[in-house]
Amino acid sequence: MRVEIWSDIACPWCYVGKARFEKALAAFPHRDAVEVVHRSFELDPGRAKGDTGQVLPMLMNKYGMTEEQAREGERRLGENAAAEGLDYRIEGRDHGSTFDMHRVLHLAKERGRQDELIGLLYRANFAEERSVFADDERLVELAAEAGLDEAEVRAVLADPGRYADDVRADEREAAELGANGVPFFVLDRRYGVSGAQPAEVFTQALEQAWGGRSPLTTLADAGDGEACGPDGCAVPGA
Amino acid sequence: MRVEIWSDIACPWCYVGKARFEKALAAFPHRDAVEVVHRSFELDPGRAKGDTGQVLPMLMNKYGMTEEQAREGERRLGENAAAEGLDYRIEGRDHGSTFDMHRVLHLAKERGRQDELIGLLYRANFAEERSVFADDERLVELAAEAGLDEAEVRAVLADPGRYADDVRADEREAAELGANGVPFFVLDRRYGVSGAQPAEVFTQALEQAWGGRSPLTTLADAGDGEACGPDGCAVPGA
Repeated sequence: MRVEIWSDIACPWCYVGKARFEKALAAFPHRDAVEVVHRSFELDPGRAKGDTGQVLPMLMNKYGMTEEQAREGERRLGENAAAEGLDYRIEGRDHGSTFDMHRVLHLAKERGRQDELIGLLYRANFAEERSVFADDERLVELAAEAGLDEAEVRAVLADPGRYADDVRADEREAAELGANGVPFFVLDRRYGVSGAQPAEVFTQALEQAWGGRSPLTTLADAGDGEACGPDGCAVPGA
Repeated sequence: MRVEIWSDIACPWCYVGKARFEKALAAFPHRDAVEVVHRSFELDPGRAKGDTGQVLPMLMNKYGMTEEQAREGERRLGENAAAEGLDYRIEGRDHGSTFDMHRVLHLAKERGRQDELIGLLYRANFAEERSVFADDERLVELAAEAGLDEAEVRAVLADPGRYADDVRADEREAAELGANGVPFFVLDRRYGVSGAQPAEVFTQALEQAWGGRSPLTTLADAGDGEACGPDGCAVPGA
């Protein structure tokens, strides 16, 4: 079974939702047969690379909140994170473009390090002091910590075209699947769960998707034809 | 869309079938949205590691063929390979356990090098003089050529438990999906194609699977709940 998770590093509900999903997965009896794939979704796809800012003033500006209201919203998000055992910084957190992070996450996917990297990126963004938006060095450092080759990461960052199509393709696919927000979970391309649902909802979704696996429709059967089995291989013309 | 291919390196129809599938895929308009995953299937899972032998005597023994009949069968398999632009050796080719190859293919999958390695293993087994069964050095060499870290490959080979469960899990899954021979192609876990079918059959299967993608069943919707979208994130309790 395969679970695809569309998310953005800048999305606090993705950070929380990932932990809730993982709690359900850890208790799922068929967890070893579940493959998790992370897919790109930028909340702010037009954002320019150098355009960074502080989270609290952004919230005040975006929602017309007072500073106290913005801080209170963040505090409540932080409570949700804490309930999953996650740290969450309120003061001094910044935001910006996540496009390069998604490009490097695609490299990490190819190198089998995606899950490691996305975890480090979330932690760095939501829980650590040093910005992941202000300079590429932080991203290189985290990618190396996830097990990627530093030179390879630098080469990807230096060429804005690398994995750009993969990011865009993920985003197009999210739209085709009807996602207009994240986190967005897709199980075996048959069932969708949107939002940072409670772990119990993910448990139910995993159970339903597992039980609902349908038998294959056979489009072409080798019969005694061009195939090999435990008893040997068909010999053409024999 | 995802295509999973169950196959064994020792299976000539897998070698031919892979090329036929790839011909269809190369001409498929949505090829960039197709992900190919190789899955393990041993034709002879009980085979001991050091137990190697020559192919022609094995065929004579297994099918009660004369040497000329065995060679003729191989010649015809070679014609099928040649029709796909693949080399195929008849004389002096050996066979043996493929378990370690499948274990290293799982490492390669994690490192994003699976497709490279399986292609090199097929070529080495069916077209090149040096045996892939006689010693581990050949396997290490091919894995390094596919882009894997040599020390990492040696560590996997030295520990028979590494990726063993992954190989067995693939084989169990093949049985659950109804495959009793290979190559066995599964499209989006919905459609099955068994055998080295002509490229046209794979084209039809790709088209049918693409057209037959069903809309997701939404199990849980965030609504205005715990999610982020282009307009911002839900604030808990706000």
